Order: sequence, then structure tokens, then C-alpha cells
Amino acid sequence: MGERKIIEIIQGHFDLMPKMPIPFGDDVSACNIGNGNLAILKTDMLVSKTDVPPGMTLWQAARKAVVMNISDFAAKGVKPKAMLVSLGLPKDVREEDIMELARGLNEGAREYDAYVIGGDTGEASDLVISISLFGTAAKSEVMLRSGARPGDVLAVTGFFGNAPAGLKILLHNIDAQEKLRKVLVDSVLLPRARLKEGLALRRSGAISAAIDSSDGLAWSLHEVAKASNIGFTVDKLPIAPEAERFAEDHDIDPEELALYGGEEYELILTVKPNLWAAAEEAVRRVRGSLFRIGTVEAKKTVLIETDGKRRVIQPRGYEHFKS
Amino acid sequence: MGERKIIEIIQGHFDLMPKMPIPFGDDVSACNIGNGNLAILKTDMLVSKTDVPPGMTLWQAARKAVVMNISDFAAKGVKPKAMLVSLGLPKDVREEDIMELARGLNEGAREYDAYVIGGDTGEASDLVISISLFGTAAKSEVMLRSGARPGDVLAVTGFFGNAPAGLKILLHNIDAQEKLRKVLVDSVLLPRARLKEGLALRRSGAISAAIDSSDGLAWSLHEVAKASNIGFTVDKLPIAPEAERFAEDHDIDPEELALYGGEEYELILTVKPNLWAAAEEAVRRVRGSLFRIGTVEAKKTVLIETDGKRRVIQPRGYEHFKS
Repeated sequence: MGERKIIEIIQGHFDLMPKMPIPFGDDVSACNIGNGNLAILKTDMLVSKTDVPPGMTLWQAARKAVVMNISDFAAKGVKPKAMLVSLGLPKDVREEDIMELARGLNEGAREYDAYVIGGDTGEASDLVISISLFGTAAKSEVMLRSGARPGDVLAVTGFFGNAPAGLKILLHNIDAQEKLRKVLVDSVLLPRARLKEGLALRRSGAISAAIDSSDGLAWSLHEVAKASNIGFTVDKLPIAPEAERFAEDHDIDPEELALYGGEEYELILTVKPNLWAAAEEAVRRVRGSLFRIGTVEAKKTVLIETDGKRRVIQPRGYEHFKS
Repeated sequence: MGERKIIEIIQGHFDLMPKMPIPFGDDVSACNIGNGNLAILKTDMLVSKTDVPPGMTLWQAARKAVVMNISDFAAKGVKPKAMLVSLGLPKDVREEDIMELARGLNEGAREYDAYVIGGDTGEASDLVISISLFGTAAKSEVMLRSGARPGDVLAVTGFFGNAPAGLKILLHNIDAQEKLRKVLVDSVLLPRARLKEGLALRRSGAISAAIDSSDGLAWSLHEVAKASNIGFTVDKLPIAPEAERFAEDHDIDPEELALYGGEEYELILTVKPNLWAAAEEAVRRVRGSLFRIGTVEAKKTVLIETDGKRRVIQPRGYEHFKS
């Protein structure tokens, strides 16, 4: 059973909170706290056996668990304030392992100006790091998945394919030229959440919908299409040059890496066309990037156009529990 | 390494949030949200191999995970509003298991008027249920561990010993007369959080300090003593009659069950002596119980007095990771 099927079953059993400000299935959850303000909440769990590739240190694993959660706040344009951590630790855990995990958690949080304020620990067979993130936001300001309109510009904050290529290197012990290897592998071991970009874009008022790309570019596009009831044409696939080079060297389809890889933490956004310059300017001011990759369409299909030919982008991506 | 040692190591590595409204180590964490109000946050993780005894259904395990968290809110007098769930699920999990877990989570939340508003799932070797709870409270109203003063009345919301006795029955397959068995085992399988008592007592203004008893009566008393810089004399140990009966039948020390058992979700409170009647009345109105069991002392020892003799209550209790 796939992760998404499981989530669907579970959600079907939950009573809906009245006036739920953000629906199930968006990147974060929310709760009204009065005066048009929301408490923004997110939980995301890292489990060593599926989320920690060979070669990743405990410090990196702990930091990655933080980044996974921060990235969802970034996609909504919400500043994270505080973090809780539930740690499941194997029985034979050493004191130095615990210190390394604690440092990774703290440094991950501080990198994005948040603090760890509490948590819990227990014995588990795997290393489990479950993080909950908290922040507040004005209800009218949160960037949801559901606001994209036909004619909006489709944009991303960075290139795709490096983390999936790096993951192949780590998992299958694939060779690569040293400098290339480092770029690809680092994108797996030291992912970054696009928080400053997300906050700046939210303030620009130019964004109609947003999502983070951790489930893969293809899957995330389909999620926004579903939530906004629109479609996309991608006419400029943002493949990272390093991923392209790696794909060429190893006879891998670079499009496959960029579209269906996942575990990347870019933001995917739809921008109101008359405010495109404002969005670009907002991102430039925080020294980020914004690349136009396509257009929002009224027709509910997700397509890629290359050399004048259109093909369907499939609704698949990175998923745990795949059998 | 014990759970408390691990927590100590971890906390030592965290940068402290400035003006942290509730210190590390209290039952909940908090974050200022303006106008003297706090976001109250709690995470507590249930792991099948240490927290789910034989005989406990998945529905009960999911509900217990909720109750563990609600109980900490109850001890602070804070109403829980919303809940996030991170679920670690074994690879071979069945659809009906997932539905049972979802129902337990939802029914646990609704029992205490809260809603599940989001979550995450991933593959893990054990069943892991990590819950995060959210609510808001006026900063001045939260009942902390640190406010007890010499002369205050020490009180609890119920009797102790049944869950530890029930756990012995489940873990070691011990015989007990059918009716007795049911009471003891149900206290393990269907624990209750004292939320209405906690909310009523907070509103009464009579409480100087509070904690929940999930780590055991003895340990929890030591925690309040440490946080409030005081001591206790317990002169009336609140042993449940069923636990007493079970202890007698099986030649177990009933005091051991009541003091050092743990996994019970009563509230332990210190009450301003001049407001004792108000506290009693507040609890009676919500059909709860409040039992006076001792006194807060200036001397920083935790003692029990029986037949005019005083003995030390040891700082030990229920703990995972014990080797």
C-alpha cells in the first residue's frame, strides 16, 4: 500500500474541524486563533530506514528532518517560530550519537531562525525523528495550493535533478567525477529549504498558489493542478546542469531525474502575470532565484512541451511504501 | 542510558528561545503569540514495542497516544484544540489496521473536544504514533510545576496503582478474579485524561502547581519538588482499592504499585490552603474527585508518613530505556 493511499484512508476517518482554515492535504495545517490569525502547524517524520541514505551522518539526518518541515512553511510563506521533536532511538544508541542528533536539530532550527522548545524520546527499532513546527500567519496571507488561475506564470526557485542523481550515487555506489559527485551528493546530504524566497514571495503579493517540491516536480504539479482545478504546460524544464551531466555520463534520462526524482526542496509557484516583475524583484532582494518554466492552463492536464511536441507529465513521484 | 539522561543530553545542546514562557522540562512547551497569550504545544510518542502491552488493540493504542498528550494539557489547565499525527507503520500493515488506528485517533481527539487537522506517515519497523497537540492560553493562567509553596495542600484527582497492577496482569499473564481483572486491565487499555478536572481547577484559581502522573506518583512529586524548590510529606497514600486487593492476593507491596508504577494519568496538584474549598467545589461541579494526600514543606525532601513514621519516597518511576 502506498503512502498516499494510506493518508487517504486515514483522513476519511477524521471528523472535520469546523471552519478549518486550510484543508487536509495542503503543505501545512492551521487553526484559527482569532483576529484573522492562524496558528500554522506541520509535522513530518524522518525514519532512518527510508529517509537516511548510506553516507548521511546523524547530524545531517537530524538537520534534514528539520529542513523537510521548514520547506513546507517556506512554500506557504510562513515564518517558523518553534519546533518540537519526538525522537525514537534504538536501544544501543551511544551518548555521542545523541549529541550529534541534538546538534543537528538545533543547528537546523537556528539556520531558519526557529528554536527547539520541547520534545519527547522513546525506544524504537529505527531512528525516528518526528518534528512539529509552529508559526503564526494572517489568514489572508498564506499561500495555498488552490489559488492558481489560467494565464498565471509557473515558476520555480531552483533547478531539479541533483538530489535524485546524488541519491543514485549514494544508494547504488555509482562513480562520478569528484567535483560533480560532491555537488550531487551534497544536495542530498545538505538540503536547503527556500524559506527566505517563500517569505519574500508571500510579501510580494504576486503568488496565486505554491507547494514545495519534496514529492517531486511532476507529482507536485499534479497536486497544485488538482487543488486549483487547472492544468499546466511546462515549456522549459529546469534541469540542473550537474544532473544533466550525470545523466549523460550514465545513460539516464535527465527528464526522469528532474521530473520524477523527489527529495528536492524547491518551491513551485504560480505567479500573477501582471506581478511577475514584483515576484522576480522580491526574490532577487533575498539573493534567490526565480525561473519561469511554464504556464497555468484552463485545461486540466499537466503537459510538457519540447520541440513543439506536447507530452503528458505523469502523476508519479517519490513515495515511501512502494512495493 | 535512561530516557531522562537522554533528554538531559539533548536539551543541553539546544539554544534557548529568548523569553521562553514555559521552561524545558514542564509538561508542555509554549511560544508567545502576543497580548499575553501563548501557543501551547506538546508532543509525545507512542512506540508499540515499549508502550503497547499484549492485549491492547490498535484502536486502544491510537487512543492511548492521544490520551498521553491530552493529560499533559489537562495538568496545565489548557484546552486542546488541534492535533497532528505522525504515523510510522510497518511495511506489512493492513488496510483494516490503518482504519482502526484512524478511528482510535479521531475518537480519542473528539472525546476531549479536539480535532485531528493533519499529519504524516512513513514506513517504520515498529508502529510509531507521534502526536502533537496545540492549544492557546493566557500566560498568567497556565498551571506550572514551579508554583508550589510551603503550607499548600497536596492533592490528586484519583487513586493510584490500578494501571501498574493491570500492566503486570497483561505482561506476565497473572491471574485475577474476573471483575477485578477487568477494572485493572481497563485502566491500562482505556486510560482517561483528567481534562475537565484540570480546566475546572485552573479556572478556580486555587492551584499553585500541577503535573500529570504519567511517570508515576513518586517521580512526579520529585519533579514538582525540584521545579518549586520545596518538599512534600504524603500522609495519606491514595492507593486504589482494586490495586490493594490485587497486591494482597499476589503478595506485592501495594505502596510500590501506587508510588512507583507509572502509566497513570491522574493530576497531582498543590492547592493554596485558603482556596481548598474552591478547588473541591470546582472539581465537584465537573463530577470529578479531589483527594488531599499531604502537605507542601519548606524542607526539600519527599517523605511519606505512616503510623507516625516518616520514610523517603525515592525519585524513581516508570521509565523507558531502562537496562
